[in-house]
Amino acid sequence: MLIIGEKLNSSIPSAAAAIEKRDKAFVQKLALEQVAAGADVIDVNAGTFLTQEVELLAWLVETVQEAVEVPLCIDSPNVLALQAALPLARQKPIVNSISAEEARYQSVIPLIKKAKAGVIALVMDDQGIPSTTEERMVIARRLVERLTQDGVQRDDIYLDVMVQPIGTESTSGKVALETVQCIHRELKGVHITCGLSNVSFGLPKRRLLNQAYAIALTANGMDALFIDPLDEKLMALIHSMNALMGSDEFCCDYLAAYREGKLG
Amino acid sequence: MLIIGEKLNSSIPSAAAAIEKRDKAFVQKLALEQVAAGADVIDVNAGTFLTQEVELLAWLVETVQEAVEVPLCIDSPNVLALQAALPLARQKPIVNSISAEEARYQSVIPLIKKAKAGVIALVMDDQGIPSTTEERMVIARRLVERLTQDGVQRDDIYLDVMVQPIGTESTSGKVALETVQCIHRELKGVHITCGLSNVSFGLPKRRLLNQAYAIALTANGMDALFIDPLDEKLMALIHSMNALMGSDEFCCDYLAAYREGKLG
Repeated sequence: MLIIGEKLNSSIPSAAAAIEKRDKAFVQKLALEQVAAGADVIDVNAGTFLTQEVELLAWLVETVQEAVEVPLCIDSPNVLALQAALPLARQKPIVNSISAEEARYQSVIPLIKKAKAGVIALVMDDQGIPSTTEERMVIARRLVERLTQDGVQRDDIYLDVMVQPIGTESTSGKVALETVQCIHRELKGVHITCGLSNVSFGLPKRRLLNQAYAIALTANGMDALFIDPLDEKLMALIHSMNALMGSDEFCCDYLAAYREGKLG
Repeated sequence: MLIIGEKLNSSIPSAAAAIEKRDKAFVQKLALEQVAAGADVIDVNAGTFLTQEVELLAWLVETVQEAVEVPLCIDSPNVLALQAALPLARQKPIVNSISAEEARYQSVIPLIKKAKAGVIALVMDDQGIPSTTEERMVIARRLVERLTQDGVQRDDIYLDVMVQPIGTESTSGKVALETVQCIHRELKGVHITCGLSNVSFGLPKRRLLNQAYAIALTANGMDALFIDPLDEKLMALIHSMNALMGSDEFCCDYLAAYREGKLG
């Protein structure tokens, strides 16, 4: 299970404030805390700054890398921001994101090739996010085929199943879960991820829904999670899932997490 | 999701003490508490008493029914105890359990037919509990075929996938989960259940493992859960799963549970 720490994102007000005033101490502390809590990768995003994004994302990449050695997930809808930030990465980065939208695909793929990066590939195209599992699978197959033709290894592809809020459409949790199941069954060798917390948007007790959904998706083949690694209950449930799914021989990691007080 | 409250079981020391001294107040309180917390069915078990089981199970059935109106799951390895208890049931009971062990099947099936009861059918035979999903599916198919030939409706069959402790065999959680997936895909119309808490036997923080496993199995088609409904976190996660899996339109039940303070 790859844990991608999602806290350094300018859509979060406290992170935005810190990024805007280039508060190195705040940013580095949040990076360190996420890694200490179990993050394998740190997502960095300055997308809300629009005109300043190019410089702020580059600053964020350099600032985080001064503090931690894990790879970064470089997260921007802006090709110029990706272009400026990617060469700064000290570890092999993950580009967040490409999609089957034609203009986006065309503009981002050269950056991925040049950086030899991993890539989050959103299961959507110029018609938007399909409402059914079948339509999402058509796009997923197309993305994997095209990315591999463009030289990206399957192991570097992270298909994002596009989780939508259940508060606006009751079946959207189920559709994304079924998409995970279909990708896991059919498209061997690629990773599966999602923006988990979208599912609970607008509802009370969001952490609870996010916890349950993380487990549900993990039990069906999702293997890369954008989460808040500082949510101790969620991390404890993920440790449990590794043991329950047979990927933790003799429950060694689970017992180690218990001894370290990480299971609550 | 059918919630079967598991607390009135003589393998639990406090319940055993109460059953032995026929402590009506304790037993009825525990039945009422489980129903108030969301149990749809109450499991009753006096199996540890051996020579006294026939009378104690009958007493338990009558005592619980004085307090609550939900159906009972009448739980015994002893055919004579089932025979004495089943005619006392005021609501359609569930017999816990039959299996593909030949002698057990032969002795229990007439009781099920006579009581027109639902039945927990353990996926095991005279060779014991198979270690692989494929072998469990052979037994599951055979049990469904034989039970329906004997007049049991598919909707009255609850296949128990036989969860074993991950502490002794790392892959046992995965095998039971895969069995749930296969039954859900192949044997339409039957219910799927398990003795959930077996999975965590011998490990620390058992509730955490049980919570994660309940969600994992539910996300793959398990629809009847033997659990402790007084575990508020587990019940909150189950409310979440109903919303996440699209079976709770407009998240109405989730929001009601929130307003009632049931989500923590």
